[in-house]
Amino acid sequence: MDREIEQPQNEGREPKRVSRRDVLKMGAVGGIGLLLGATGLKGLSLLDEPKPASAKPAPAAGTIPFYGAHQGGIVTPMQDYVCMGAFDFTTTSLETVRKLFKQWTDASARIAAGEGVADESGNALVPPADTGETIGLLPVRTTLTFGLGASFFDDRFGLAGKRPKALADIPAFKRDELVPEWSHGDVIVQVCANDPQVAFHAIRNLARIARGKAVLRWMQQGYQRSGLADPKGATPRNLLGFKDGTNNPAVGDADVAGEIVWAKGADGAPWMDGGSYMAVRRIRMRIEVWDRTTLGEQEATFGRHRDSGAPLGQAGEFDKADYAKTGKNGKPIIPADSHMALASMGGKVKIHRRGYSYSNGIDLRTGQLDAGLLFICFNRDPREQFIPMQEKLAASDRLNEYIQHVGSGIYAVLPGVREGGYIGDTLL
Amino acid sequence: MDREIEQPQNEGREPKRVSRRDVLKMGAVGGIGLLLGATGLKGLSLLDEPKPASAKPAPAAGTIPFYGAHQGGIVTPMQDYVCMGAFDFTTTSLETVRKLFKQWTDASARIAAGEGVADESGNALVPPADTGETIGLLPVRTTLTFGLGASFFDDRFGLAGKRPKALADIPAFKRDELVPEWSHGDVIVQVCANDPQVAFHAIRNLARIARGKAVLRWMQQGYQRSGLADPKGATPRNLLGFKDGTNNPAVGDADVAGEIVWAKGADGAPWMDGGSYMAVRRIRMRIEVWDRTTLGEQEATFGRHRDSGAPLGQAGEFDKADYAKTGKNGKPIIPADSHMALASMGGKVKIHRRGYSYSNGIDLRTGQLDAGLLFICFNRDPREQFIPMQEKLAASDRLNEYIQHVGSGIYAVLPGVREGGYIGDTLL
Repeated sequence: MDREIEQPQNEGREPKRVSRRDVLKMGAVGGIGLLLGATGLKGLSLLDEPKPASAKPAPAAGTIPFYGAHQGGIVTPMQDYVCMGAFDFTTTSLETVRKLFKQWTDASARIAAGEGVADESGNALVPPADTGETIGLLPVRTTLTFGLGASFFDDRFGLAGKRPKALADIPAFKRDELVPEWSHGDVIVQVCANDPQVAFHAIRNLARIARGKAVLRWMQQGYQRSGLADPKGATPRNLLGFKDGTNNPAVGDADVAGEIVWAKGADGAPWMDGGSYMAVRRIRMRIEVWDRTTLGEQEATFGRHRDSGAPLGQAGEFDKADYAKTGKNGKPIIPADSHMALASMGGKVKIHRRGYSYSNGIDLRTGQLDAGLLFICFNRDPREQFIPMQEKLAASDRLNEYIQHVGSGIYAVLPGVREGGYIGDTLL
Repeated sequence: MDREIEQPQNEGREPKRVSRRDVLKMGAVGGIGLLLGATGLKGLSLLDEPKPASAKPAPAAGTIPFYGAHQGGIVTPMQDYVCMGAFDFTTTSLETVRKLFKQWTDASARIAAGEGVADESGNALVPPADTGETIGLLPVRTTLTFGLGASFFDDRFGLAGKRPKALADIPAFKRDELVPEWSHGDVIVQVCANDPQVAFHAIRNLARIARGKAVLRWMQQGYQRSGLADPKGATPRNLLGFKDGTNNPAVGDADVAGEIVWAKGADGAPWMDGGSYMAVRRIRMRIEVWDRTTLGEQEATFGRHRDSGAPLGQAGEFDKADYAKTGKNGKPIIPADSHMALASMGGKVKIHRRGYSYSNGIDLRTGQLDAGLLFICFNRDPREQFIPMQEKLAASDRLNEYIQHVGSGIYAVLPGVREGGYIGDTLL
């Protein structure tokens, strides 16, 4: 295909092109507008020949190829929607698992390209190959990211000896109120896309392909503000109204990603070289309590000003936080137990956050909104990054009064799949 | 404000403009692209002065004003997302209800304009006026549509005598498996927008304003494919993979809307003049069963070809269905019990459908996907339109094997609010 593509393994390094043919394929002015509009290719005049826009991702409706050195959906600039599905195997045959991963690989590459999971025969006597709800839709930057949970390495498949040390069991953090049905799973699939129907379609069809081999354990969709509502792409706000992600490391830089995100495979799991570790936490927000809290307490809780996102005592969102600065009362302006102060970890420990808001209607037990953050982060080694950070937050974070961790999982996110290979082939 | 606006009460009649200043306000090329792209203003050259595009709605990120002869969100061309919230009053004071409706009116007008629900004082000692998650986001064609359930006319507020006859109790349809917690409510608010975070924000803030007066009874979000994924705006597909809405009446035509949608207030409820009646059905789809069904059975169930959306035996989506045409076996090509054949009601009964897909993760009781259709329709008099149609479908629809009606409500959707007035002022 000649469609302009985003190379997830090279993001932030290679200049990208919008091909003329692609623009023409979009057809009407409306299409061109969308193609350009939502990508932020602001230097591209509408009359010019298309030209490189440095370090810009694929168009908002375009394609991110499934195959590459790393999986997409990790350092890929965030799409607007997520559908996260965790599967448990019902088979105990490793050969069946291998076969499923091959089937999932083919289906995923097609989904990422905006196609159905397989060619349709048109035979009226058999079920369609694809469930059909995305027929005619553009690829909308869909990525599928596969990871293995700790339970995958139990005694079913004979792989206990291959479990990476970095795939550590998440300790029971203080205040955890975990629900098993919203946690863990043998395999996780994170689907991100700029359309929620497209993301849902992917998990649904992977579940369908897995019939008789694996079942969905949990599924959660999420969103952040769309590129349409925020064409300038400011830092998104969480459902507590605060900007979330300001201090994310610049993983578009390969050196930064290498330091923070990519597993090196050096700790006895060479098959994880080029993979990553993903922690997922379903964090329910006590919306109704938060909404009754004063602005001052809200800002002290995050350590930031709500409207500007600036660290307390500063003017701009990206101004450096001054944790030593004290106010008239002699206390630090940024409270030591604020979320930002604790999560900064003295600048020594970093993770790459990639979370989405979720809202599931009313919790019938309490009559309150079931809404919050599907926290997702990637790191090279959770024992050195996510776990110590979360331990610190769980112990002291002022935000804990307003949140509740109800789901949890940690997964070994596989290296990228080369064309002709399949998901997990370095392990299986 | 000079922002180009869509007049919901005049849609399909008045030519609309994109103001030059508005285009400039959008700033970058990206913004213009978005503005034009997602609206489908295909006749508008990028170099021309803006000029009228007949019968086109507001830009995808633009504003639909809250005030008007009719409420928005009824004949308004569909936005991409819905957040539907049903409230029950905890007060029994009509004066308190009136006060709440006035507060909701002010908040709704501001939300539709892309603003917070009230001006922020910046006072650190009080909670913020707005919950903040939409700060900086564009209005994205947000509409808020208020309706009253039958329970509003019980003995609490002394309004039993004002209940419109057309606000009939929905009969218990054959096969209904209704869950009370997903049905009814004193007041319904349908929020539609081209961004799900914006839609959620609206219901959340209305609930917050209602504290001590009303509580959320149920809330359900929904989506259809986004304008980004489908810039040409084809008929959306439901989660069974079929196009849904092909035969919707052209309510952009005021005569059609007058005949099908707008209540006349002639049946003893003059306060409903210019309002409408909304039926909401939460229709769960037995996804896993459907996905094992042959293409032939799927197409016979809907009466349409899956890929093209054409009536069986025809080539184009909008070709006329021929219910008399028989196949080699002497039977009608479009089965008499197909969804389309039954819902057509001999061409005599029409409703205006405006539904969204929903998916709520896994149903923990069954391990299956909790997904389906949030069916929403508007009609002038449900006794003559929605109810007889649904009775016929409930009795015989071949689709019933694959769906389950689990939520239900019918609501008197109030007339539009004139500036200076408030929601429900013709009744209260």
